[in-house]
Amino acid sequence: MSKLKDVKKVVLAYSGGLDTSIILKWLQTELGAEVVTFTADLGQGDSDLEPARKKAEMMGAKQIYIEDVREEFVRDFVFPMFRANAQYEGLYLLGTSIARPLISKRLVEIARETGADAVAHGATGKGNDQVRFELSAYALNPDIKVIAPWRDWSFKSRTDLLDFAEKHQIPIAKDKRGDAPFSVDANLLHSSSEGKVLEDPWMAPPEFVHQRTISPMDAPDQVTEIEIDFSKGDPIALNGKALSPAAMLAALNDLGCDNGIGRLDLVENRFVGMKSRGVYETPGGTILLAAHRGIESITLDRGAAHLKDELMPRYAELVYNGFWFSPERHMLQAAIDKSQEDVEGTVRLQLYKGNVIVSGRKSSKSLYRNDLVTFEDDRGAYDQKDAEGFIRLNALRLRTLAARNRKS
Amino acid sequence: MSKLKDVKKVVLAYSGGLDTSIILKWLQTELGAEVVTFTADLGQGDSDLEPARKKAEMMGAKQIYIEDVREEFVRDFVFPMFRANAQYEGLYLLGTSIARPLISKRLVEIARETGADAVAHGATGKGNDQVRFELSAYALNPDIKVIAPWRDWSFKSRTDLLDFAEKHQIPIAKDKRGDAPFSVDANLLHSSSEGKVLEDPWMAPPEFVHQRTISPMDAPDQVTEIEIDFSKGDPIALNGKALSPAAMLAALNDLGCDNGIGRLDLVENRFVGMKSRGVYETPGGTILLAAHRGIESITLDRGAAHLKDELMPRYAELVYNGFWFSPERHMLQAAIDKSQEDVEGTVRLQLYKGNVIVSGRKSSKSLYRNDLVTFEDDRGAYDQKDAEGFIRLNALRLRTLAARNRKS
Amino acid sequence: MSKLKDVKKVVLAYSGGLDTSIILKWLQTELGAEVVTFTADLGQGDSDLEPARKKAEMMGAKQIYIEDVREEFVRDFVFPMFRANAQYEGLYLLGTSIARPLISKRLVEIARETGADAVAHGATGKGNDQVRFELSAYALNPDIKVIAPWRDWSFKSRTDLLDFAEKHQIPIAKDKRGDAPFSVDANLLHSSSEGKVLEDPWMAPPEFVHQRTISPMDAPDQVTEIEIDFSKGDPIALNGKALSPAAMLAALNDLGCDNGIGRLDLVENRFVGMKSRGVYETPGGTILLAAHRGIESITLDRGAAHLKDELMPRYAELVYNGFWFSPERHMLQAAIDKSQEDVEGTVRLQLYKGNVIVSGRKSSKSLYRNDLVTFEDDRGAYDQKDAEGFIRLNALRLRTLAARNRKS
Amino acid sequence: MSKLKDVKKVVLAYSGGLDTSIILKWLQTELGAEVVTFTADLGQGDSDLEPARKKAEMMGAKQIYIEDVREEFVRDFVFPMFRANAQYEGLYLLGTSIARPLISKRLVEIARETGADAVAHGATGKGNDQVRFELSAYALNPDIKVIAPWRDWSFKSRTDLLDFAEKHQIPIAKDKRGDAPFSVDANLLHSSSEGKVLEDPWMAPPEFVHQRTISPMDAPDQVTEIEIDFSKGDPIALNGKALSPAAMLAALNDLGCDNGIGRLDLVENRFVGMKSRGVYETPGGTILLAAHRGIESITLDRGAAHLKDELMPRYAELVYNGFWFSPERHMLQAAIDKSQEDVEGTVRLQLYKGNVIVSGRKSSKSLYRNDLVTFEDDRGAYDQKDAEGFIRLNALRLRTLAARNRKS
Repeated sequence: MSKLKDVKKVVLAYSGGLDTSIILKWLQTELGAEVVTFTADLGQGDSDLEPARKKAEMMGAKQIYIEDVREEFVRDFVFPMFRANAQYEGLYLLGTSIARPLISKRLVEIARETGADAVAHGATGKGNDQVRFELSAYALNPDIKVIAPWRDWSFKSRTDLLDFAEKHQIPIAKDKRGDAPFSVDANLLHSSSEGKVLEDPWMAPPEFVHQRTISPMDAPDQVTEIEIDFSKGDPIALNGKALSPAAMLAALNDLGCDNGIGRLDLVENRFVGMKSRGVYETPGGTILLAAHRGIESITLDRGAAHLKDELMPRYAELVYNGFWFSPERHMLQAAIDKSQEDVEGTVRLQLYKGNVIVSGRKSSKSLYRNDLVTFEDDRGAYDQKDAEGFIRLNALRLRTLAARNRKS
Repeated sequence: MSKLKDVKKVVLAYSGGLDTSIILKWLQTELGAEVVTFTADLGQGDSDLEPARKKAEMMGAKQIYIEDVREEFVRDFVFPMFRANAQYEGLYLLGTSIARPLISKRLVEIARETGADAVAHGATGKGNDQVRFELSAYALNPDIKVIAPWRDWSFKSRTDLLDFAEKHQIPIAKDKRGDAPFSVDANLLHSSSEGKVLEDPWMAPPEFVHQRTISPMDAPDQVTEIEIDFSKGDPIALNGKALSPAAMLAALNDLGCDNGIGRLDLVENRFVGMKSRGVYETPGGTILLAAHRGIESITLDRGAAHLKDELMPRYAELVYNGFWFSPERHMLQAAIDKSQEDVEGTVRLQLYKGNVIVSGRKSSKSLYRNDLVTFEDDRGAYDQKDAEGFIRLNALRLRTLAARNRKS
Repeated sequence: MSKLKDVKKVVLAYSGGLDTSIILKWLQTELGAEVVTFTADLGQGDSDLEPARKKAEMMGAKQIYIEDVREEFVRDFVFPMFRANAQYEGLYLLGTSIARPLISKRLVEIARETGADAVAHGATGKGNDQVRFELSAYALNPDIKVIAPWRDWSFKSRTDLLDFAEKHQIPIAKDKRGDAPFSVDANLLHSSSEGKVLEDPWMAPPEFVHQRTISPMDAPDQVTEIEIDFSKGDPIALNGKALSPAAMLAALNDLGCDNGIGRLDLVENRFVGMKSRGVYETPGGTILLAAHRGIESITLDRGAAHLKDELMPRYAELVYNGFWFSPERHMLQAAIDKSQEDVEGTVRLQLYKGNVIVSGRKSSKSLYRNDLVTFEDDRGAYDQKDAEGFIRLNALRLRTLAARNRKS
Repeated sequence: MSKLKDVKKVVLAYSGGLDTSIILKWLQTELGAEVVTFTADLGQGDSDLEPARKKAEMMGAKQIYIEDVREEFVRDFVFPMFRANAQYEGLYLLGTSIARPLISKRLVEIARETGADAVAHGATGKGNDQVRFELSAYALNPDIKVIAPWRDWSFKSRTDLLDFAEKHQIPIAKDKRGDAPFSVDANLLHSSSEGKVLEDPWMAPPEFVHQRTISPMDAPDQVTEIEIDFSKGDPIALNGKALSPAAMLAALNDLGCDNGIGRLDLVENRFVGMKSRGVYETPGGTILLAAHRGIESITLDRGAAHLKDELMPRYAELVYNGFWFSPERHMLQAAIDKSQEDVEGTVRLQLYKGNVIVSGRKSSKSLYRNDLVTFEDDRGAYDQKDAEGFIRLNALRLRTLAARNRKS
């Protein structure tokens, strides 16, 4: 705590909810610091951020920043990540991870604008988000102080927190008095749920945990067919209609939600060293990943595609662990973006009760050549005799090895 | 062809169908070679192999080998591959690729037993299978001759082939007279379809292409819940009942088929250099992959899991390209098998209209520790203060970099 | 050969030596093709290329291109490769490999300018160079025909070749009549020797094999100290004097040669499947690699450095195998170049009898911070207490694993 | 510190020197703990460990373990690492890193034997060694307490330490009164020097820093030629004489030392986040690496060799960072060891003034085939015509790409 005693002004990532309101007050009372709040619309669902403004005002925030960053979020964070087909541990689409660097970036920028010497966030000391917030902040301003009240304050229990809230006239919504049955994070890319009712990985998640998708079982009995156009690896139009990045993701979310798409129940490995279980809902992202793989399948050369596949786990790990603003992520992004220059064309998908089925892809940049692959007469496009030499030279080292091994 | 003129005895991978019957006769008549046939039950569906025997006898095969290799196939090829979570180009479960090495292994062994100096297969000069057959054969016997009649003979068209068949009294099933609308491969792991009606990747596959699964739309409206037990990374029991490897895969296939699971429509990159489009059906394998990832999620350490994820694309590429019997595949397998020693326990899955949903996993070897991750009082299992040092040292290089960059 | 019968005009990579002169004549007489010659000064040593021009004229070349491409070679091929610290199989600096793509690029460009439909090279059918020439040519012009006379002609022996030469009045230098005791390739980056007297890998290379360096034993007894300045990962000045890329490499070659630096006796794995033994001399390149690693050591962040190290073997393999003009090499180059933006500063080296010793490095972009690392009072730059949390969270998964394993 | 207050018995890694003697006393006086000392002969040079025993007795150590672990060190740690050709950041042979896991292993074992609840080491809070000690300890006993006095005590300066030593009658060697001009670590594999006079990476290391090698300039003017025999990747005989692992490394050290071999002046990236500069001397290891690469060059298949090269940086990073006892290091070791089964034969080396020159390699398991590679008549071992098909199919995707790109 002593390191915090000189803090004069803090920019707080402020949701308007109970926990960050307690933090706001705690920063003022315990640290004696002025607080600037930053509330972002990342597409988490409550697009009306006025209540957050009012609450921040009421609690004496020195300055209040409220911003709609959805377009920046999707354009500069979500889409670059999807160019990599990033899935952490083979499955997770990194919905929470990818939002943190943007928030930190704005916190640090606002700190510069307002002359604040510290930033603060509401993530606990057990999770990955503290790491993501803080690595991003330090990478953007090496001298910034980062305050993580959940690690620093002396509250021992929820009761302590509520007592502090009451003492400082922080309004407590009725349903917040008891413990929430699980913890939630949300943005335009996904919703996540974890903790409490989800803590036993043998128990199936209760249906009420899901925030953003209907169950496949409740989805329509008909297929919904859509087409997505891509340019340079990013989706640019849905069913022929051009959409901005955020509008595209929102539209895909609606389609995914309606068709029960994008649920994931996962036990994952946190950067801080333990396993945790989460339920993720990424309706639009799940569609986008399938579509992107689909358009890549005809426009990306094998060498590029396989290199991407080999680099992907590393890329996903970097994003998960909070190293978005690291030189190695920038290097990988440069490689990936290089590969996407001709990833353009159209993918047709069928959405049906949890299934995302790629049923067609076409592109003026297609590398698929029917004249090569056809079972019919290929008019000399491919000489089958070439295969013999190809195989014999690929086999040469194996034959040499077999002869050696037979000798011994 | 001159290289073939001295061939005296050939072991032919013989299905009993029209094409390999023509090859059998061609080897006899054009090369003047004795032919030994090898027909394997890999679970391709026609478990009655007696017709193949009769046909081979009728056509004058010198010796006839007919074998049920399903247990070996699943135990020594399919399961080791699934330990790696292998998916080629992110999606394909390698059903065709994994069967070829086993066939070549038996061809080479039979050649040794029968004193044959060559083996022959019925794969064309455009595909991957020729490579897989031949690399495997050469890796197991560096002096074996490999005959690929599709590359060597002078037939120019299907008509030529049929003329040859008629001339040599090879029976031609009525439905074989015209061209098949697509080409098929099948074994206990999967069925694949490609060519003809599938050649335009923008056209959705017609429903009749599918061999092995019903459509998700035709699947039951109820969830089927199953439990799979694992030991050392392999499935050993289904719903509490111990099953042999082949019986396990067959049972999973039935479950997958009934629930519309395991279809994949893919444009992939062949080793011989062109893109091709295939429709794959891997009902049991799709369930097995999800289940295996599920049991790994609680029993595999993060370091092992991430290393596996990074090695996987390479492993899958090796299998796809036909390098099963290569030192590098053996090296990767050693690493992977090392990781699977404690991958045991039970996974619960929900099968529903194309969806495979992991809904629970438990293990006496679980590394999931609720005392660490809980939002509740963890009684000191985890000290949140540790996170600060963890983050600060992870950030140190990024801060150094930021300070350097600010200077300049 | 039939594929060659329609060739009308060929651009030949022409050295002026006996072998490519025979090829020139063979292309004219056997193929009835017009021949355009391309002779490049890549720094191979005979900077006077007029004899090659005269000989080509005399032999009836239709057009003659003679070019000094040394600057392009070093700037666009050698330096980008050294940014990657590329060493094939841990040791080889790829001196031959890196020159082939440039030659092919010019061949293809000249073919376009002169309306030629084919290019030809003098590499044999056993080596890597044929692959490098041809992959590069095909990657730059998919329709170009590539003629490799060594694979195509019917000469069976050196005598046949010499008979053909005599028959067509091709001058034969006296020392070319007998077999050379080994085969040589050279350019500004290196000289290589292979074959004949080098074929037994147990026999040490005779001293006379070396073309370009004196023996460490013959080098001066004094240290030569030099300083190299870098910018964006490339060397730009030697001992304070700015030098063009080719002049820089030439100067480093002189320094290396004089100090017995850069010899390598290696058994390597060729792309075409066999092992071969080569003696390489890369005097300037050996100095450059050490210097580049030196400047990177203080200017490159750990994350970038380690990613580069992991990507390097793949990059080197691509260059060695001839995939310079492939999407995956371009992707890797994009990642590598991204990392080099701040690789600038000065390295001091000691050259002494085969040794290249980095003895100092400094940079205005240095990331080395003595305030962090010092054993003295660091005035709070680093809090040793942070290490405990860092270690404890890194250990957490290992402790969890140990506890699990102890149980069982 | 509160976490330490219950410690009853500590096993201390004890060198007998001043610093660990102060730690011994501090553990007794400040923590009130019984201390068990463990002093290992790792080949650091002072093979007489009796003074350490006497000193420990005098200072009241409860139990004293003194052990010669040189054979175990080389056999189970150094040699397995050299099978991987491990070099951290391309250059460093990991001499310090590889000793720490063994010391921790014995500390934890002795703790078990003596009923101690903690182990302690003398590494500071800025370096990598603390991480290596502690990760190893935790991986072997998840409940062990680890004490790192340098991070925990309240001494602020060297004067404080000396005052404490005097107060407790700890003998202080005269030359320890002043600050050492640099800090040293040594074992049978290497000596390292860092700090103080080495802190400026632009200043060349003074000659007196070197502990273990003479300068190349002082080495003999004649070549020393040696032969090393390998079996399963490990050296087993020198000049025909079988040697135990430790005897082998000692003999190579003598040879390296005498010929000025194995010096390295490096700026490296520590795991804890800063760059540091070290001078390393690894005379025997430098010879061993060259020899091992030499024997691998003729006995290892290309696929295995290249996979090893790609895995090496990761392996080296794991060793450097202290993850010797991690699942991922075990996985990589399994892969590496798999590759070494036939790495046997003899390598001849020339040692000369800092140079290690491989001048010959032979093996009954050699994969080098002169019949394939020869420029002479190969009697059909290799068909040059195969190369055409090999190249054409490798080029196919590049040609497809070029045709696509030309269109657009």
